[in-house]
Amino acid sequence: MSDDKNIEKPKVSARRSALKAGLKLGGLAAAGTAGSGAIIKSAVAADQSKPDPLITEIQDWNRYMGDGVDSNPYGLPSKFESEVVRRDVAWLTADAKSSVNFTPLHALDGIITPNGLCFERHHGGVAQIAPSDHRLMINGLVDHPLVFTMEDIARFPRENHTYFLECAANSGMEWRGAQLNGCQFTHGMVHNVVYTGVKLKHLLDEAGVKARGKWLLPEGADPAHMTRSIPIEKALDDCLVAFKMNGEALRPEQGYPLRLVVPGWEGNMWVKWLRRFEVGDQPWHHREETSKYTDLLADGRARRFTWEMDVKSVITNPSPQAPIMHGKGRTVITGLAWSGHGTIKRVDVSTDGGRNWVTARLDGPSFSKSVHRFYYDFDWDGRDMYLQSRAIDNHGNIQPTKNALRLARGENSIYHNNGIQTWHVRGDGSAENVEIS
Amino acid sequence: MSDDKNIEKPKVSARRSALKAGLKLGGLAAAGTAGSGAIIKSAVAADQSKPDPLITEIQDWNRYMGDGVDSNPYGLPSKFESEVVRRDVAWLTADAKSSVNFTPLHALDGIITPNGLCFERHHGGVAQIAPSDHRLMINGLVDHPLVFTMEDIARFPRENHTYFLECAANSGMEWRGAQLNGCQFTHGMVHNVVYTGVKLKHLLDEAGVKARGKWLLPEGADPAHMTRSIPIEKALDDCLVAFKMNGEALRPEQGYPLRLVVPGWEGNMWVKWLRRFEVGDQPWHHREETSKYTDLLADGRARRFTWEMDVKSVITNPSPQAPIMHGKGRTVITGLAWSGHGTIKRVDVSTDGGRNWVTARLDGPSFSKSVHRFYYDFDWDGRDMYLQSRAIDNHGNIQPTKNALRLARGENSIYHNNGIQTWHVRGDGSAENVEIS
Repeated sequence: MSDDKNIEKPKVSARRSALKAGLKLGGLAAAGTAGSGAIIKSAVAADQSKPDPLITEIQDWNRYMGDGVDSNPYGLPSKFESEVVRRDVAWLTADAKSSVNFTPLHALDGIITPNGLCFERHHGGVAQIAPSDHRLMINGLVDHPLVFTMEDIARFPRENHTYFLECAANSGMEWRGAQLNGCQFTHGMVHNVVYTGVKLKHLLDEAGVKARGKWLLPEGADPAHMTRSIPIEKALDDCLVAFKMNGEALRPEQGYPLRLVVPGWEGNMWVKWLRRFEVGDQPWHHREETSKYTDLLADGRARRFTWEMDVKSVITNPSPQAPIMHGKGRTVITGLAWSGHGTIKRVDVSTDGGRNWVTARLDGPSFSKSVHRFYYDFDWDGRDMYLQSRAIDNHGNIQPTKNALRLARGENSIYHNNGIQTWHVRGDGSAENVEIS
Repeated sequence: MSDDKNIEKPKVSARRSALKAGLKLGGLAAAGTAGSGAIIKSAVAADQSKPDPLITEIQDWNRYMGDGVDSNPYGLPSKFESEVVRRDVAWLTADAKSSVNFTPLHALDGIITPNGLCFERHHGGVAQIAPSDHRLMINGLVDHPLVFTMEDIARFPRENHTYFLECAANSGMEWRGAQLNGCQFTHGMVHNVVYTGVKLKHLLDEAGVKARGKWLLPEGADPAHMTRSIPIEKALDDCLVAFKMNGEALRPEQGYPLRLVVPGWEGNMWVKWLRRFEVGDQPWHHREETSKYTDLLADGRARRFTWEMDVKSVITNPSPQAPIMHGKGRTVITGLAWSGHGTIKRVDVSTDGGRNWVTARLDGPSFSKSVHRFYYDFDWDGRDMYLQSRAIDNHGNIQPTKNALRLARGENSIYHNNGIQTWHVRGDGSAENVEIS
């Protein structure tokens, strides 16, 4: 990277509209206080000239006993983390019962999304299902139509896998330029969870799929009765019927007590509150795979199916909701990368809007169809940065620029935007969503 | 395994005392209803002769819209999971502010312990620390005594690792025979978490440990000011200063905003609310490593230090809190295994009290010093079982019987009980903690 050279200022379009409603962005108010201008050792020396709270004060938490072990049977985050929550955008949809909220990616690290922070998308509100009353039916082109209780399903061999789930509409509002000021909103329709469940193949084998059975229709038990058509090859490959996430029971908003896991494929195929599989000989072309969740091209035609989520990445820190507070010097840039095709092989980071690239450090386990965590540790000189990340997967797929996507697919699309994101980081550490052309 | 032969009934001692106080064991009341006596396909056929809820009823969750995406900014488990909580044992300690509660292992799967269910152990209640006011000091035998803010620490290169934390006293009450009726209580002082933090070595290097500095004293900021002596070799090897667990900020009861991670070593060395490291030339022999957390042997002498947690396993399902509800036929036995020395190479399961063993299936990632998940899928003939598991780690360490431990260390000990656990499973699926001699 050529961070010693004066770089030419790239052509930048700031986000076109300010975030319109109801977003409390904790931390931003303090963004101007950064800039002590030192590497860590000097910063510490400076601190030592001021009264040291370790020496001059007895803090409250030394003076008073806190809660005992009988206080919180199910534990919750610290009161000082109250801003780390899912957030919705009220103007986005007509009703919160058929809407979306967003994962606070800027406040997380590692690859696991905590269950309480996994974004929600539902079409009829969150069903509250009693597991003892829940059933899963398999019917259609099968030898033995079957009805399973939750207990029946738990008798099949279980597996554990870590997969990302990304809504096809993630980053959808960014097709027409920088819109939303925070990676929670631009990229927060993704989460990454360890699922426990049984291979769908085991259940289908128990029912006996007939030779003519080439398609599968999973159906949800909530009032929206989500359905999608899935080719039988995928169903028999790596799909899971999952009942646990990150160790504990599925959360209600994630389909408790049972959801379909369709690794690497778009989120709305992962049917929640799963109650039925119909086996058929052709796709059903239901609402959520025709009028919705298809990609409208520039010439007015639409792609029929776009199942796999392409290679993508985003820098989560710094970002508009998580400015740099410490001034120049030693700095950690971090973010997430994922691909519906497999693992992430490499992530590149640019601080100058894509002119020069350095290879980031991938840390933590590399699971197929799971997010990967990357870091870039460097000394920031305090000058403006145009931060970008670019992921490459193990099949050689390279994350494209947004302009390359627009060239290929026009500007009608909402879904499957895996374009490179740019954050403009100013000398004071604050960051904004911008477009580089 | 010789499950076709009539096995001789082993000599069994039931747990000596019933669980004494305050434990609501959800699910146990229904334990007698099992026993339809069929493999799954037959069970389903039987169900089909009864009214099918999918066909005969419209359930409430189809009729009414549920919560919208603005309802739960930080999500919680289903109301039907209200029994899946940490539980304490009121008679165990004088005060809940210096006590322990237990992870509900019987209700979990996979290897991740959800943050809200990680057992708690504290000595002065849960400190509620404001991260902006928190400091970490390094003093003693160092070139540059330093004080770090939370922000300073986040500027060092970060790593992510999955480690188990086990209290040295886990299973301690079982030294003198089967006592507590549930793996939550016998083995629930363990959790397994993905930590994000920085290598302690980076911080010590920044301060510059002097040649005479051979020991490290971490100190907590809560009123108990927990301290332990750690050899500098371990501190410079794999210890982390962690600020995130399972993706989000540490929970208050786990040391928010900062805790020490001492992979594979006993839990009370993992100092929470971490505020200071002193570097010294010898161990301090403070309270929690002399009068407590040392192993009193039969002859009245005590082991000076017992840091590493030995190879151990437990069957979590079935177990007293999680009986078999479906009767004989296809059955999944599952549990956890771990070793402070490295990875788990193999887990054996016995259904006849240790006479015959089969190799269990290990599933999910195998991380060093992390729990491993095992499964044993088999057809249960409905006869009484004496279930045991036996773990072997990658260094060849084999989990011992409790009697072998008693022979080696007497019956004075509380800590470091890694003996083989037995559950007696009756024909009705109910299970009890027993001892086999």
